[in-house]
Amino acid sequence: MNQDYIIPEAWSIVEEGFDKERVKSSESLFSIGNGAMGQRANFEETYSGPTFQGSYIAGVYYPDKTRVGWWKNGYPEYFAKVLNAPNWIGVDVGINGEKLDLNKCSAIRNFRRELNMKEGWYHRTFEAVLQNGTEIRVDVRRFLSLEYDELGVIMYEVTPLNRDAKISFTPYVDAGITNEDTNWDEKFWEPLETRHSEKEAFVVSRTFKTHFHVATYMHNTLFRNGEEIASVPVSEKAGDDRISLSYEISVAKGEKAGLQKFGGYTASMNHPQDKLVHAAQEVIGKAVEEGYDRLLEIQKKSWAEIWDMADITIEGDIKAQQGIRFNIFQLNQTYLGKDARLNIGPKGFTGEKYGGSTYWDTEAYCLPFYMVTKNQEVARNLLSYRYNQLDKAIENAEKLGFSHGAALYPMVTMNGEECHNEWEITFEEIHRNGAIAYAIYNYHRYTGDYSYIPEKGLEVLIGIARFWAQRATFSTAKNKYVILGVTGPNEYENNVNNNWYTNYVAKWCLEYAAEQVEEVKKHYVSDFSRIAAKTGIEHTEAAQWKAVGEAMYFPYSETHGVYLQQDGFLDKELIRVSDLDPAQRPLNQKWSWDRILRSPYIKQADVLQGFYFFEDHFTGEELEKHFDFYEPFTVHESSLSPCVHSIQAARLDRMEQAYAFYLRTSRLDLDDYNREVKEGCHITSMAGTWMSIVEGFGGMRVREDVLHFSPKIPEQWKAYSFKINFRGQLLSIHVKASGTEFELDGNTPVPVVINGRKTEVHPGTPVTV
Amino acid sequence: MNQDYIIPEAWSIVEEGFDKERVKSSESLFSIGNGAMGQRANFEETYSGPTFQGSYIAGVYYPDKTRVGWWKNGYPEYFAKVLNAPNWIGVDVGINGEKLDLNKCSAIRNFRRELNMKEGWYHRTFEAVLQNGTEIRVDVRRFLSLEYDELGVIMYEVTPLNRDAKISFTPYVDAGITNEDTNWDEKFWEPLETRHSEKEAFVVSRTFKTHFHVATYMHNTLFRNGEEIASVPVSEKAGDDRISLSYEISVAKGEKAGLQKFGGYTASMNHPQDKLVHAAQEVIGKAVEEGYDRLLEIQKKSWAEIWDMADITIEGDIKAQQGIRFNIFQLNQTYLGKDARLNIGPKGFTGEKYGGSTYWDTEAYCLPFYMVTKNQEVARNLLSYRYNQLDKAIENAEKLGFSHGAALYPMVTMNGEECHNEWEITFEEIHRNGAIAYAIYNYHRYTGDYSYIPEKGLEVLIGIARFWAQRATFSTAKNKYVILGVTGPNEYENNVNNNWYTNYVAKWCLEYAAEQVEEVKKHYVSDFSRIAAKTGIEHTEAAQWKAVGEAMYFPYSETHGVYLQQDGFLDKELIRVSDLDPAQRPLNQKWSWDRILRSPYIKQADVLQGFYFFEDHFTGEELEKHFDFYEPFTVHESSLSPCVHSIQAARLDRMEQAYAFYLRTSRLDLDDYNREVKEGCHITSMAGTWMSIVEGFGGMRVREDVLHFSPKIPEQWKAYSFKINFRGQLLSIHVKASGTEFELDGNTPVPVVINGRKTEVHPGTPVTV
Repeated sequence: MNQDYIIPEAWSIVEEGFDKERVKSSESLFSIGNGAMGQRANFEETYSGPTFQGSYIAGVYYPDKTRVGWWKNGYPEYFAKVLNAPNWIGVDVGINGEKLDLNKCSAIRNFRRELNMKEGWYHRTFEAVLQNGTEIRVDVRRFLSLEYDELGVIMYEVTPLNRDAKISFTPYVDAGITNEDTNWDEKFWEPLETRHSEKEAFVVSRTFKTHFHVATYMHNTLFRNGEEIASVPVSEKAGDDRISLSYEISVAKGEKAGLQKFGGYTASMNHPQDKLVHAAQEVIGKAVEEGYDRLLEIQKKSWAEIWDMADITIEGDIKAQQGIRFNIFQLNQTYLGKDARLNIGPKGFTGEKYGGSTYWDTEAYCLPFYMVTKNQEVARNLLSYRYNQLDKAIENAEKLGFSHGAALYPMVTMNGEECHNEWEITFEEIHRNGAIAYAIYNYHRYTGDYSYIPEKGLEVLIGIARFWAQRATFSTAKNKYVILGVTGPNEYENNVNNNWYTNYVAKWCLEYAAEQVEEVKKHYVSDFSRIAAKTGIEHTEAAQWKAVGEAMYFPYSETHGVYLQQDGFLDKELIRVSDLDPAQRPLNQKWSWDRILRSPYIKQADVLQGFYFFEDHFTGEELEKHFDFYEPFTVHESSLSPCVHSIQAARLDRMEQAYAFYLRTSRLDLDDYNREVKEGCHITSMAGTWMSIVEGFGGMRVREDVLHFSPKIPEQWKAYSFKINFRGQLLSIHVKASGTEFELDGNTPVPVVINGRKTEVHPGTPVTV
Repeated sequence: MNQDYIIPEAWSIVEEGFDKERVKSSESLFSIGNGAMGQRANFEETYSGPTFQGSYIAGVYYPDKTRVGWWKNGYPEYFAKVLNAPNWIGVDVGINGEKLDLNKCSAIRNFRRELNMKEGWYHRTFEAVLQNGTEIRVDVRRFLSLEYDELGVIMYEVTPLNRDAKISFTPYVDAGITNEDTNWDEKFWEPLETRHSEKEAFVVSRTFKTHFHVATYMHNTLFRNGEEIASVPVSEKAGDDRISLSYEISVAKGEKAGLQKFGGYTASMNHPQDKLVHAAQEVIGKAVEEGYDRLLEIQKKSWAEIWDMADITIEGDIKAQQGIRFNIFQLNQTYLGKDARLNIGPKGFTGEKYGGSTYWDTEAYCLPFYMVTKNQEVARNLLSYRYNQLDKAIENAEKLGFSHGAALYPMVTMNGEECHNEWEITFEEIHRNGAIAYAIYNYHRYTGDYSYIPEKGLEVLIGIARFWAQRATFSTAKNKYVILGVTGPNEYENNVNNNWYTNYVAKWCLEYAAEQVEEVKKHYVSDFSRIAAKTGIEHTEAAQWKAVGEAMYFPYSETHGVYLQQDGFLDKELIRVSDLDPAQRPLNQKWSWDRILRSPYIKQADVLQGFYFFEDHFTGEELEKHFDFYEPFTVHESSLSPCVHSIQAARLDRMEQAYAFYLRTSRLDLDDYNREVKEGCHITSMAGTWMSIVEGFGGMRVREDVLHFSPKIPEQWKAYSFKINFRGQLLSIHVKASGTEFELDGNTPVPVVINGRKTEVHPGTPVTV
């Protein structure tokens, strides 16, 4: 833990007291988003202290020219980056002629932020003494509407406390912004057009190269003591890429001056390029029609609907409760699953780091969360995203020398093209293909919906199977297929041979794809003929895949009775993490790369990731052996590591360990374990936190169309509960030390297996086991 | 072969005819240097076509901020670069008011360049028709004095052919130059001061960051028909970093107008910083005193002395003759061994690529050439260079986690600090340490001079042995020491385990260092106590090194009866290079990096490099087996590869193959095999060419203080001869099909072994065997 200023509350993230050192961290933690746009918790008014400005529009990116020390064939020319979008939130505030700037006030009292997760708004209040002696109270609420996802709302209120005051509000929209993360210090936005009237302003700009057109807009209304002021004189300032409108209100001591600012973006992804201002005007029209209070009501309702399906309660452990809700909230702020063109960036709308929006995190960690807490179209959209990018994955594989429709999905992408440029990752961390195939299997297993496979999934599976079949090498020395030169999920090993996880997932992909080819061929004849025509699949191909899968080599140690992470693992000096000098950690900050590589230390689950995906292929004893062999060498220096270990520790009845891993994953950002939350939150690992509870403590599995549970409870907790949308019915699970209660909101009884014992849950009739 | 415009002559490099496409290539091939400075064959006069300007001062470098995509701990902050130095050669030429520019003339006739290697000058002549109709003949000779190594000389003569003409010469010195190779497009030079008079000009500038101060100077004399003109009116132009002096001479048709320009550099490496202009004036004084003709005579004499010891003649194969002389000439232009602060950059003074001046090439390839063709101080200076940088090598190892005086020499360096920034090279290509120790052994073996070891060498050996002892890992699984995560000489493999070459050279270093510790302890008591005090060597250390060396693991294939290049080599798909589609080559331009890595293809000798260094540890049969196993997978995409193979093919009596490898290495740049000569020549591999003849065809070896030869002759040749300085006496070897003649220029008979038969060569009495 690196910080503990966040006040534990069940439904809110709260900060009290103003500390300049915490500003960037809080800008990340109090970020808001609605799936279509996002906003770091930057102050609306001028702030001259250290800050990291971030406004984001989902799907809008910039291909930043790759920066590299030593170029290798096959590197992509560009790294597609999430980019800082024009500023719509800005409001300069003047108090009796002095600009409000929290970095320059004489005193700041009662500073408080609250991110209300239940209702989806961000609220900031403080009292400040300005250098001119005026004391004011400020109260600002901001939210991004889920219902109208191009709309952001700000209510900015100022009350002078010790004298009458002239309050000026100067809201603006500004496309002249820069990016924190840029390889060559280039500007990413080109201004095209501005328009304004007394209440409204529009800046149309477009990204260089990608030519996403965006209208950034605002609409302002002034209030005195909560009453709208019909007409306030305005003075305007319009530049090429920035428009500000300035209003002044005189208020007596104790009276409230208010500015309501509607703002946001309309983008060419969703509207004709030449209709963006018109579209923005329509959003403004709707917002004005609904009005602030009603918009806030709608927002609460939208979030209530999300929580109704996705909430997890934890009794007796407020920090754990706050942690899990923060994770669920951020995931929903980032991605709502309405749009198959979007995906789940590793920092969501809370920062720029890593660029790209899509990693294997989506399939390996995020899919289960969205599949279980939302309607199944959302998970289908996540799968379709990859289907829609299959052509690019085939191109990507071609660049690396593969042929005949072999597909290699990118390590990092925005539009399907590979962005990443480290050979050991870009070219070698190919296990990512496995997670993409596994997600198709996982979707079918959980939802029971096979239709996705003949419709879209099979083509993806064929491309992936072709890749593995070509990528495996037949070793005459071993008389087996080997997979040479890879990086596994444990990125603290590079260019290794026969990474067990990669070989295992490859074998599985080959066999699963072969089975689906047979299945679709038999039962979905017209789909198959369409797919066969498109892919040119030959009748011998599936058999070849099976043959490669069956003859796959797996490194194994007879001495230890475990599969080896890769060839040669046992040559390492096997000193456990617990015997390492703590001063040496985190390794990635203390050791040179070669030292990390030749050490046995594991960044995140690797063999154990395979045991997580394919749990049913192994006995509990086998899991225990492998967990005991590998966990002691695991440094968990990836945010994606603790969750898998938490789930497996729970399965092995090691609840202390499971709980410790859970705490680390659930409060990773709130407590800033990795000293980097100011750069943004770890969005994708938040889905892992959710898995730790539902699959770890709750022990939820689906086996042959039946839900299995083996509920356990950490001794720190009194009870916890979660809900799952299982095939259209909502099942609630409430776990206490004394027993587990199941309740079904649906029409058809659901058979479940609890701790191996079969029972049935009937609609409206709670069952306790 | 990619070009063949160089006209074969025994002593000269000649180009005839002007072709803009060849300008950059010829700029590299016709480069001149004198060990202290160098100059690409840029035109003196303005040239508006594509050109690569390059002037270089030995030892002057710039630490360019590292550019990298993904930073790793341990990467150096800077890459020390050879940098383009201020221009001293420039002479703008006006003909009846029109600027001479070969890119803009109406016609160019009889264009000819000659680089006279025997005498060390570069000569360019041509006739041009200007746009104004004036026809002129131009004749320019340029050389860098070996005797006065801060002095360059230009004689620039213009004869109008069809009318009288006003010829203006505007010589200049210019520090406002840029670099082709810069990571961030920065300027590397800061101008400090200028001074000039009617005949002379000085620009003092310094490199940013490193603060090398340099005075760039010129001194001009005008001639009409070879007669000095006492006084010519001058008009001057002096900026911050550039001074030009303009002179005009009227000549009648057929008369010759001449400019003699002395110029060059004085640098703060060799003079007090505030005396640079003074030092330059002294050089000018000497040059004026000697005069042009005498300076040229001295130059011929200096080169005659070099050739007297270093020349190799080849009869019956003019291209091979030209090739070997070009290689010997370039090596001598680059490094003369007078200054232990300097070393042999991979491009010498012919380009900027690769930066740094020192690679393992120096010890592995260049040392033998300098050791055999020069007095032994030169080789000693090359060794001392590493001794002087031992502290930096220890620091470098510390950055990577080593301790207790372990030393890791840099992959690329200027001043001892590591420059390179690719983890797989910088951190893992550690075999370089082995070549540095081997050079000490090699020096002692050849020169018989043991004194270097107690004096300096032992400290280096101790640092290197400590590194290997710490870098090896004890594998309990193998009950042997293993070396994990390395890149061998074959850089087409990265991060492999138990690279045979690395393990072998490590074992050898450990054992050799242990023996030298014992030797010095016994016979050089006072040296040992000094070294022991300085290094803190413990009395058990040498025994530990031996123990690690003795228990070193070597991958071996019983099936093939060969050592394996690394663990897992036999898992690869072993398709021979000859069975590869030629369209796939060169691999480094056609294949992505992962594909290269998992292929069996070898960039340059790796196991065979070990067999080259330690030939006497293996039987001829073993060599043959390994050569036949590895050569078929070798693509020779390193300039350092063919020479080792040529030597071994000769040893195996495969003269056709040996000759083919020889041709490829000796004319690599002249015929531009790698399509990159315009970036500069491959200087260090030129020493490999020399080895191909002396050690390959000549079969020269030193065993137990005795010279061995096994002369062979390619059937394309009538005869060839070379000389070697063996322990202060000059032995000439003349090989013909009918027999080999030995001749000794010295005082003491030299025992030699020819094809296994012992004989003696007596001074002044040729022996034919």
